[in-house]
Amino acid sequence: MAEIDQAAVEQVATAARAARVASRRLALLSRADKDAALVALADGLDAATDQVVAANAEDLGRGRGSGMPQGLLDRLALDPQRLAGVAQALRDVAALPDPVGEVVRGSTLANGLQIRQVRVPIGVVGMVYEARPNVTVDAAGLGLKSGNAVILRGGSAAESTNRALVDVMRAGLESQGLPADAITLLEGGRDAVRALLTARGLVDLIIPRGGAGLIQTVVTESTVPVIETGVGIVHVYVDAAADLDKALAITVNSKTHRPSVCNAAESLLVHEAVAADFLPKVLAELSGAGVVLHTDAESGGAADAAGVAHQGVTEEDYATEYLALEMSVRVVPDLDAALEHIRTYGSGHTEAIVTEDRAAARRFTSEVDAAAVMVNASTRFTDGGEFGFGAEIGISTQKLHARGPMALPELTTTKWIVEGDGQVRA
Amino acid sequence: MAEIDQAAVEQVATAARAARVASRRLALLSRADKDAALVALADGLDAATDQVVAANAEDLGRGRGSGMPQGLLDRLALDPQRLAGVAQALRDVAALPDPVGEVVRGSTLANGLQIRQVRVPIGVVGMVYEARPNVTVDAAGLGLKSGNAVILRGGSAAESTNRALVDVMRAGLESQGLPADAITLLEGGRDAVRALLTARGLVDLIIPRGGAGLIQTVVTESTVPVIETGVGIVHVYVDAAADLDKALAITVNSKTHRPSVCNAAESLLVHEAVAADFLPKVLAELSGAGVVLHTDAESGGAADAAGVAHQGVTEEDYATEYLALEMSVRVVPDLDAALEHIRTYGSGHTEAIVTEDRAAARRFTSEVDAAAVMVNASTRFTDGGEFGFGAEIGISTQKLHARGPMALPELTTTKWIVEGDGQVRA
Repeated sequence: MAEIDQAAVEQVATAARAARVASRRLALLSRADKDAALVALADGLDAATDQVVAANAEDLGRGRGSGMPQGLLDRLALDPQRLAGVAQALRDVAALPDPVGEVVRGSTLANGLQIRQVRVPIGVVGMVYEARPNVTVDAAGLGLKSGNAVILRGGSAAESTNRALVDVMRAGLESQGLPADAITLLEGGRDAVRALLTARGLVDLIIPRGGAGLIQTVVTESTVPVIETGVGIVHVYVDAAADLDKALAITVNSKTHRPSVCNAAESLLVHEAVAADFLPKVLAELSGAGVVLHTDAESGGAADAAGVAHQGVTEEDYATEYLALEMSVRVVPDLDAALEHIRTYGSGHTEAIVTEDRAAARRFTSEVDAAAVMVNASTRFTDGGEFGFGAEIGISTQKLHARGPMALPELTTTKWIVEGDGQVRA
Repeated sequence: MAEIDQAAVEQVATAARAARVASRRLALLSRADKDAALVALADGLDAATDQVVAANAEDLGRGRGSGMPQGLLDRLALDPQRLAGVAQALRDVAALPDPVGEVVRGSTLANGLQIRQVRVPIGVVGMVYEARPNVTVDAAGLGLKSGNAVILRGGSAAESTNRALVDVMRAGLESQGLPADAITLLEGGRDAVRALLTARGLVDLIIPRGGAGLIQTVVTESTVPVIETGVGIVHVYVDAAADLDKALAITVNSKTHRPSVCNAAESLLVHEAVAADFLPKVLAELSGAGVVLHTDAESGGAADAAGVAHQGVTEEDYATEYLALEMSVRVVPDLDAALEHIRTYGSGHTEAIVTEDRAAARRFTSEVDAAAVMVNASTRFTDGGEFGFGAEIGISTQKLHARGPMALPELTTTKWIVEGDGQVRA
């Protein structure tokens, strides 16, 4: 790998040290102080609507000029109504319980020592994400509530918007007597990102949020600990003992409710015993909803018989996160084959079985190795909001520290506090 | 970095895939099956005492021949009595609760979905450690109990002993109808280790256990997630409001009880208000116990006045984990200076304050950023056994996943299981 530009390394080190100093203040704040600051930030954003929307117009203009696709422009756009929603999300975070100080477990030892494991902030957290301004505010808010200083690196296509948002939020912090360096926007080119990813010891954690390419880059280049989020090659398996009405609703919802997100299903596996009954209905409904179907031989035959358009599935399809109205379809001889398929192609995000058979459900939930395993429910439920966490910073698909929807507690670590009256080891 | 020998990469990939298959069996075992296997392994080790001790004699002979220091020879030695202790430790692990299947939290959502977060094994765990045969058995036992397959890489000086131990344990697994590949010894040269550290996707976690050099190598070279263990630059701070009898006992115990381990104190900070009273006593007692004292100007003066041998402290001393009967000593003007010293030189392992002042204790426990913070207790208590966990695989000094003593729950991850009756998202 090429050397990182030394000026970028210095820039990140300076920002990270300032963030560290700020994080020490944040770690000691009461919940009341943090909640008041979150509300002040939200009010500040509301008051700065014109300024933020104008900055966003600059980004949108540049985006249109450079031929940015409509979908990305839509994610980039921040009109007054959307900004109000983003500000409101900060107030919602204020209403959530404070994870810091929670006693996770504790006991009094035989020698009288009182030990307790207490949640504390992680310290300095780097977020690397795409041109989605709402993530800038969400990450700042969740960071503040969990007592962490954040260094934010959004996609460069949103740089004017992000600068406006961060300026407003830093001013909001200062108005509350808090250090502005609790929220830092990392500007500069690719070398600034690489410097962030290699600032081991200065930055405690990097959370990438975005497509597979961004996440792969961060995971590969980072020497700072990373929590991987998001890639979802998600399956719905319709078992021999499935209620086919539930199976139809769950498959269609999992695929079409919001196809661009990580918990949308990408692949349908159908037990051969119900294939003849189920496939004509589900393929017709998926196709009717605009889903491009990639079928194996048997499901292709059913599609033909039902007069549904389809194309042949490839090995690559099975391994693809479409994030779009496309789906691979395969008929499997039994539950074992479904489990083997998921082991081979799944990304460990969310897997669902539709069945009324307790034994099949039990095997599926025990044997599938994923962050979330659903029985008779849409895969779209793997979500911090749906799980009742109130907010999420991403969905972890790794096994260490956090797995599944990451909310405020996942932005903390713990510390053991041991209180004695002179105990020594014999 | 030089390319890794391709044969080593293949060797590790083959071992890791076999371990993965074994791990899938382990993940589904009942506690009863795992406990029976642990007892069988312990019985097997007892029955193979002659064979293991003979293998250990080979290692010891080679070690003596190559001039291995006595301390390392002692850690390498496994006589019948020590082997019985190692085997007994497996039975002790069998007696511990099974972390797998524990429901960490759960709820029923408004839409009727029942969600629960359940502990599951991590999968394939690599252990990299020094020439300490007891770690081979400990790691295998903790891995088995937590449902993980382990790939063990001990120091090459112990290779005959490790081979004998692993052969016996693999035979023990097979006698219980379990896959031998749940416990694998990684042989081969440096390239085998490097291949293990870079087997991302095949190995889920690497735990290094040993000195700072070994841990630094693993952290730097690994692309597999690592949990750092152990480096302890541990301080005892004697506050202005300390009970000086407690302070004396705690300082001496923290330093001299077992100086070679990570939770032993390396540095003594004394508030200037009690320096004149405390230093003569503590320096005399430490010196009498054989501790080499590295003193700053003020504590050096006290040592001179008390007729205690000492030498000048350097910046490097403050940053050194002696792991020996040596200690740096500094007089500080106040609690803030002590906190600043610990921020500068501490390794985030264990820090202790001795004080009767509630406010000082509260500030110290809140502001010190370490895995364990002690009030009026010896630093030697940061230990899985002392905390009542029954066993430990190491003491994590990092903030992600595990911090402090790592026992069976820290060798697991979680999975969300979501059960519905057809729910879809509106």
